[in-house]
Amino acid sequence: MTGNLGSLIIRGRDRTGIVAAVSAVLSRHDANIVSLDQYSDDPQGGAFFQRTVFNVDNLAVVLPRIETDLAEALGDGYDLECTLRDMSRPMRVAVFASKSDHCLLDLLWRHRRGELPITVAMVISNHPDVAGEVRNFDIPFFHVPSAGPDKSAAEAAHLQLLQGNVDFVVLARYMQILSQGFIEALGVPIINIHHSFLPAFIGAAPYAKAKERGVKLIGATAHYVTQDLDEGPIIEQDVVRVTHGDTAADLARRGADVERAVLSRAVLWHSEDCVIRDGNRTIVFA
Amino acid sequence: MTGNLGSLIIRGRDRTGIVAAVSAVLSRHDANIVSLDQYSDDPQGGAFFQRTVFNVDNLAVVLPRIETDLAEALGDGYDLECTLRDMSRPMRVAVFASKSDHCLLDLLWRHRRGELPITVAMVISNHPDVAGEVRNFDIPFFHVPSAGPDKSAAEAAHLQLLQGNVDFVVLARYMQILSQGFIEALGVPIINIHHSFLPAFIGAAPYAKAKERGVKLIGATAHYVTQDLDEGPIIEQDVVRVTHGDTAADLARRGADVERAVLSRAVLWHSEDCVIRDGNRTIVFA
Amino acid sequence: MTGNLGSLIIRGRDRTGIVAAVSAVLSRHDANIVSLDQYSDDPQGGAFFQRTVFNVDNLAVVLPRIETDLAEALGDGYDLECTLRDMSRPMRVAVFASKSDHCLLDLLWRHRRGELPITVAMVISNHPDVAGEVRNFDIPFFHVPSAGPDKSAAEAAHLQLLQGNVDFVVLARYMQILSQGFIEALGVPIINIHHSFLPAFIGAAPYAKAKERGVKLIGATAHYVTQDLDEGPIIEQDVVRVTHGDTAADLARRGADVERAVLSRAVLWHSEDCVIRDGNRTIVFA
Amino acid sequence: MTGNLGSLIIRGRDRTGIVAAVSAVLSRHDANIVSLDQYSDDPQGGAFFQRTVFNVDNLAVVLPRIETDLAEALGDGYDLECTLRDMSRPMRVAVFASKSDHCLLDLLWRHRRGELPITVAMVISNHPDVAGEVRNFDIPFFHVPSAGPDKSAAEAAHLQLLQGNVDFVVLARYMQILSQGFIEALGVPIINIHHSFLPAFIGAAPYAKAKERGVKLIGATAHYVTQDLDEGPIIEQDVVRVTHGDTAADLARRGADVERAVLSRAVLWHSEDCVIRDGNRTIVFA
Repeated sequence: MTGNLGSLIIRGRDRTGIVAAVSAVLSRHDANIVSLDQYSDDPQGGAFFQRTVFNVDNLAVVLPRIETDLAEALGDGYDLECTLRDMSRPMRVAVFASKSDHCLLDLLWRHRRGELPITVAMVISNHPDVAGEVRNFDIPFFHVPSAGPDKSAAEAAHLQLLQGNVDFVVLARYMQILSQGFIEALGVPIINIHHSFLPAFIGAAPYAKAKERGVKLIGATAHYVTQDLDEGPIIEQDVVRVTHGDTAADLARRGADVERAVLSRAVLWHSEDCVIRDGNRTIVFA
Repeated sequence: MTGNLGSLIIRGRDRTGIVAAVSAVLSRHDANIVSLDQYSDDPQGGAFFQRTVFNVDNLAVVLPRIETDLAEALGDGYDLECTLRDMSRPMRVAVFASKSDHCLLDLLWRHRRGELPITVAMVISNHPDVAGEVRNFDIPFFHVPSAGPDKSAAEAAHLQLLQGNVDFVVLARYMQILSQGFIEALGVPIINIHHSFLPAFIGAAPYAKAKERGVKLIGATAHYVTQDLDEGPIIEQDVVRVTHGDTAADLARRGADVERAVLSRAVLWHSEDCVIRDGNRTIVFA
Repeated sequence: MTGNLGSLIIRGRDRTGIVAAVSAVLSRHDANIVSLDQYSDDPQGGAFFQRTVFNVDNLAVVLPRIETDLAEALGDGYDLECTLRDMSRPMRVAVFASKSDHCLLDLLWRHRRGELPITVAMVISNHPDVAGEVRNFDIPFFHVPSAGPDKSAAEAAHLQLLQGNVDFVVLARYMQILSQGFIEALGVPIINIHHSFLPAFIGAAPYAKAKERGVKLIGATAHYVTQDLDEGPIIEQDVVRVTHGDTAADLARRGADVERAVLSRAVLWHSEDCVIRDGNRTIVFA
Repeated sequence: MTGNLGSLIIRGRDRTGIVAAVSAVLSRHDANIVSLDQYSDDPQGGAFFQRTVFNVDNLAVVLPRIETDLAEALGDGYDLECTLRDMSRPMRVAVFASKSDHCLLDLLWRHRRGELPITVAMVISNHPDVAGEVRNFDIPFFHVPSAGPDKSAAEAAHLQLLQGNVDFVVLARYMQILSQGFIEALGVPIINIHHSFLPAFIGAAPYAKAKERGVKLIGATAHYVTQDLDEGPIIEQDVVRVTHGDTAADLARRGADVERAVLSRAVLWHSEDCVIRDGNRTIVFA
């Protein structure tokens, strides 16, 4: 049945009749609604978001027809934007890593177990350390060094590898900052895992800062990458309890478990069209 | 706006077009959908559940019309059951308690803070201990003793107090077992809080059993009361971490926090029509 | 047995033999160790902390003798500070509140249930709203208005009420800032509950900021009050999961549960001598 | 410094002076106490447990002397049992697995990252599926088929591989039941991970039973293996929240995360001498 699953994301201004208009179109094409979530921050003209997953025979044929009919049905009097996708085609992902392998291997592992509906197109790293591990999963590994302040050569190499080949990028504890030009040129969403409960401990060495401040919980945050470092829309967060007895190294070790758990949820939800960006926030239908 | 909020619960056999048919009726009456959740355990003829909250002017007038139109729209070819309710009318609740006051007071407190959309019609107890506390909240308290094996006199007194006056009943650590006859005669849902993570430690003295078994977490379970003690549909559960150092009394004390949290969530969700019973399980749209 | 429980807090520089020297003194006085926790951030001359609870007959008589013997045993060659306390004497507490009652009532309630080994000497508020509730618990309530930028009159009134009468003070969502002079003049520990996961969302309106930033968890922090607002040593923290659907008001409502839970644990641990301040951090033996 | 860390476990009947007597012996040998935990279920003659980690120069030489002195110091009038261990020698472990690899790979991964102070001597499986994965970690893999009701040949092969070579065994979702004779002949602790929150859902197919019962949390339990299946002393447990929408397969997938987390904590704590068995319960100093 997965072969005939489609997703429909709708966003725009709320008004009476959206659900009726959309579901009438789906019903007309014999598309059965498998799940439907909606959120409106104000039913009287606020921002409206809807995620619908439907099942229909001959999805590839029917999808463009649904798209046309939706455009017609919602064209008049509605202020909405629709995105349709064939869910049987897994999103193509590139994973960036540095020397730490916990987030990277957890993703590859979950992918192999069938937990993530993605295709891992490649792994890119500024260090060669994880090459063997990655290739054990039969996934291409590319080593792109990135020393020094000038990242332009590395970013050019990245773009050549990525453009046209991936639907989103995951930074799995990749320790390099991406330039604004690269983010724009790439043009697909980038998900990062930050090793703190943002907005606490923004920037470098969050576990050392957490130890210094004496917090009793440490956390991790998966977010979309924007120009503003550590300020992008948050997708998922979680925490774990720590004590005075934990050293900064202990915090890093315990935090690693939270990082990989949080990142894997963010990747799963993104790849199932569950996450809608709205300015600097996200709507997560998970 | 709350004054014009209605809820619509639909349950039955899944098929194509339910959402379209229902939302078309709502749209025709200018009812704006505020939230919509649905669940189907199999899109091909499985069991279907939908909760819709909508906002419409003159709700009291429009509600019966929506009901009529839904009956017509779904009458032909659908195998569905609809329940409409005016959410501006808070459900009327009776709370049963014994000597422990933590669950009772937490409910009364949250109610006074405006967290629970209910009217607490009365508190009934087999002990007089909590009378003063309850009346401090300006809520009627009735003492109905229930000693000895024969509960018929007590249950008759309960029925006289309750019938026609309440929409559901909450057992807030009420330590008496209700007879099958009473449950049937009462005819409204009864929510109980059990002081264990069911189905672990069914029956009496669960904290003592938990200590004996050496578990590392203890929990609480809110469930609907059925004839089968501790076997009714589960609404909500939660746990808290304990250690070897906790005595059975410590477990009871720490468990009390979980009990009151779990019960308050179950009461909130039930009073907002978020919980649908399906045999011995629940669908919780929370 | 509680009547004969003593606590001994030791802090200073770690070296070989501290536990042996201390436990030899206790053993010589037939004091049985009920619990013993220790922490050293570096066994080679680092900072050392130890909490020992012991049981001894005629505690009131024996305590000063143990104190003398410890001073002698540790006087030579050790760099340690000892604090002995008769745990049968509950600490005396004043609770400050404003209009919100959830943290205040939770403390009074737990105290009445016997969960907190404290005496609530008084409740002080800058608003009269909670007077009735407090007096229902048979606890003195004092209304000390605190309008305007000049707090000197209010703080003078506070000092008159507090000095000599309390062992620590709890700010249970008290919405006024204490002056440096007041904190110094008071001279006892002050515990505050901050409605965010510090250091995230320092300052006013943290739930509005959390909504604005789109976080997926909100939290609360209990900390000792120092001159630096929101920067004092953290005693306890916890979080709860929220979603895009929660309004800032929902966050405040859900956060209230975390606040009262976190504050009650901090008060419990402080009143059982489980919390040792070390600069801007705490050692918590809980 | 790790090279000179020793652990001392003491258990027996509580009485005044144990800590003093033990720490005096350690102090006399210039052993510095790094951490000390104790628990007594009744200070007046109850069961007493103490874990002490100490640091001493020339541990290998000093350890037997400490042992002798402790025997002497505690020989008269104490009813105690002491166990000393050189913590610089990692415990040797054999991991048993079947087809599921999530618990197995998580252990091997954490071990490689330096999170577990163990030596993985071998992996044994009744299926060849995970051989490649294991050998990628440079760990010996042995395939011992175990079809049919008669396990005697397989168990004989297991004993030949294990005896003298391992300090404990981990069943990482090994789907075969061990005979009483095997457990006795093996003579070292065996840790199992059970895929439910015991004692709920004892026996086979716990996720299907959890789905059937409609629970709102699922869990995992790490316990020592005894003759009584699923009844051994619990080391660690945890849970994760699920909903009506999760299928039994979803529960299994989500449960896998809890299983590997719980098992890794149990293995860590056992390998650091943090777990003391006491009848059917455990004291866990973690």
